[in-house]
Amino acid sequence: MAVVKLTRGQPHRVLHGHPWVYGTEVSDIHGHFNPGDVVEVVDHRGRFVGRGYINPASQILVRLLTREQGEKIDRAFFHRRLTAALDYRRRVVRDTNACRLVYAEADFLPALIVDRFGDYLSVQTLALGMDVHKQTLVDLLDELVEPAGIYERNDVPVRELEGLPLKTGFLKGHFNPVVEIEENGLKFLVDLAGGQKTGYFLDQRENRLALQGLAEGARVLDCFCHTGTFSVYAARFGARKVLGIDVSADALEMAGENAARNGFRSVCTFREGNVFDELRAMDRAGERFDLIILDPPAFTKSREALEGAARGYKEINLRAMKLLPPGGFLVTCSCSYHMTEDFFLQVLLDAARDVGRQLRLVELRRQARDHPMLLASPETYYLKCVVLQVW
Amino acid sequence: MAVVKLTRGQPHRVLHGHPWVYGTEVSDIHGHFNPGDVVEVVDHRGRFVGRGYINPASQILVRLLTREQGEKIDRAFFHRRLTAALDYRRRVVRDTNACRLVYAEADFLPALIVDRFGDYLSVQTLALGMDVHKQTLVDLLDELVEPAGIYERNDVPVRELEGLPLKTGFLKGHFNPVVEIEENGLKFLVDLAGGQKTGYFLDQRENRLALQGLAEGARVLDCFCHTGTFSVYAARFGARKVLGIDVSADALEMAGENAARNGFRSVCTFREGNVFDELRAMDRAGERFDLIILDPPAFTKSREALEGAARGYKEINLRAMKLLPPGGFLVTCSCSYHMTEDFFLQVLLDAARDVGRQLRLVELRRQARDHPMLLASPETYYLKCVVLQVW
Repeated sequence: MAVVKLTRGQPHRVLHGHPWVYGTEVSDIHGHFNPGDVVEVVDHRGRFVGRGYINPASQILVRLLTREQGEKIDRAFFHRRLTAALDYRRRVVRDTNACRLVYAEADFLPALIVDRFGDYLSVQTLALGMDVHKQTLVDLLDELVEPAGIYERNDVPVRELEGLPLKTGFLKGHFNPVVEIEENGLKFLVDLAGGQKTGYFLDQRENRLALQGLAEGARVLDCFCHTGTFSVYAARFGARKVLGIDVSADALEMAGENAARNGFRSVCTFREGNVFDELRAMDRAGERFDLIILDPPAFTKSREALEGAARGYKEINLRAMKLLPPGGFLVTCSCSYHMTEDFFLQVLLDAARDVGRQLRLVELRRQARDHPMLLASPETYYLKCVVLQVW
Repeated sequence: MAVVKLTRGQPHRVLHGHPWVYGTEVSDIHGHFNPGDVVEVVDHRGRFVGRGYINPASQILVRLLTREQGEKIDRAFFHRRLTAALDYRRRVVRDTNACRLVYAEADFLPALIVDRFGDYLSVQTLALGMDVHKQTLVDLLDELVEPAGIYERNDVPVRELEGLPLKTGFLKGHFNPVVEIEENGLKFLVDLAGGQKTGYFLDQRENRLALQGLAEGARVLDCFCHTGTFSVYAARFGARKVLGIDVSADALEMAGENAARNGFRSVCTFREGNVFDELRAMDRAGERFDLIILDPPAFTKSREALEGAARGYKEINLRAMKLLPPGGFLVTCSCSYHMTEDFFLQVLLDAARDVGRQLRLVELRRQARDHPMLLASPETYYLKCVVLQVW
């Protein structure tokens, strides 16, 4: 097994529990390896740090799989890791048949994503060193979860940085990839083949429950409503009227179907439109809402674009605040990792000051518990969900 | 009405929504006032900022009550504020007959605390400018909430900084101050007259629910267990055995009574002891737990004592981690405002590194929603509750 030695210097982040070693942080590599192989990582004095898989094509040269000296990376290893991941979900996930079963680095299985949607699984292997074990992982998931089918959603551009092709398809069975899931007593359609991410935003599950109480008797506006999940929850929690807005006609069609499926066809209306334009137009028209949800797609996927993204977040939040009477509620999200929690809160405060409003923080939420975080790895925390009362 | 003018300089925090004006931030005061009076605050150019009450005896010279020009601070004002506070709780509080009805600055009623415990209220007026309205507030609460009794818990040392005496007693009715509350289907005794704070830690209500799933079948250790609330929740969520430790024999007696009242006498054991010593002794004895709760009293109430406090937090967390097998859960809290979230998480990471463990963040929680925060006022956020899985 090749040995990767870290440079001398500041205590390296991997020593604090972070699973990544960048190519620039390595002084030398002893021994032969193929891209995707498991290698040993040692500190600058040669002391064992851990074992992980290597890919010189990636900026992240090594991603650690274990810190146990002598732990082999074999079928039994993946069996242990997957079993622990499933045990964890049995503890923290309730009242749904859809959840993330494996969340990559945070489950000590870097770059592996496994989502469960009812009887079906969606799988992503987003780095070479995990991709080479795909068949083992699929076999183990089949054994441990016994799904009716497994779908591969390896159509994520990040794979290209690993020198991997983009691909999708059936890994077990052939089935209609539009499946129905049940979450907190509500039913939603999920398109495993064509939906965003792996078909559904599982990470917002617990945040949707935050609408309880706030939606009661309210006029609700759901911006970037996608397939209408927040809208249906708002209706379930007693909203008087819900208007969902999104640019995607396909997503809206499914949103309408989801509302109907739960008996809220008369409560929920969906409209195709650009949220920025719509918010401005509704303000001019004097429309008002009691609860507004802002769940935009990531406005930035890089640190460089952060300033522009901040302007975008400020703009929609400021517009939304203007549509709320004093005491109205705003549930506002950012799923950009680069938009840190502190910065996002500052953007919200700036928007509030510009419109002369005060913000009461009801709750500061993150991604659902089936998407845990590594405390030593900020990259595993990305979803902010800020529940505010606007005065 | 006297007019308080802010100094020129950086945009003042009150312009961003913070309700406090320090004496050092005022250039001059026009007009006569008595301590506790309502005054007008203007910026350095004389533009209206808000109205609040003044007390030259306090470092916080003025606390804002309103930012509406022309809004009078009279009975109708307090009626509107209390009504809004009650409406908010009706939305965000469920499954309990005990909650915080008024949380001071965060309800735009600085220094006023009102807690509900079943049919009774506990009231605190912690600044002179609020204390002078005590009778009006008590009358309004009586009218709006119709409690069987009201108890005053003005025995908080912070009142001395305002030149106010420490006092307790009945404001309405005479009743046994040990009352039973019901929270999420569980019953707890609360001592309105002698308990810590106003008798019960309402701010942890939602965090106690975070034990669900984690406590199932677990050996649980509840450190600083006080009257046993986390212990009883752990038992309710299926713990095999619960051991609660506290230094207060009185608190433990009530903890035993609370466990018995909910049918968990055989599951819960309570032991008098110093948590620091007990954790060390249990490690030496090879005892292990699957879930440990650390809910210590504030280790520091000042910025100056922060370093010592950080050592204390690190010590108990490190000791607790050693008592957990890989995959065990740690629910660890800090209620020190000065121990910021970021600093607390860093202390936890330091402890984990020292014992060679990795921390998976399940949830990062704050105080319950009936203790909302003002986004512009960091002082309104104090309770951190970090749910970790320790590997």
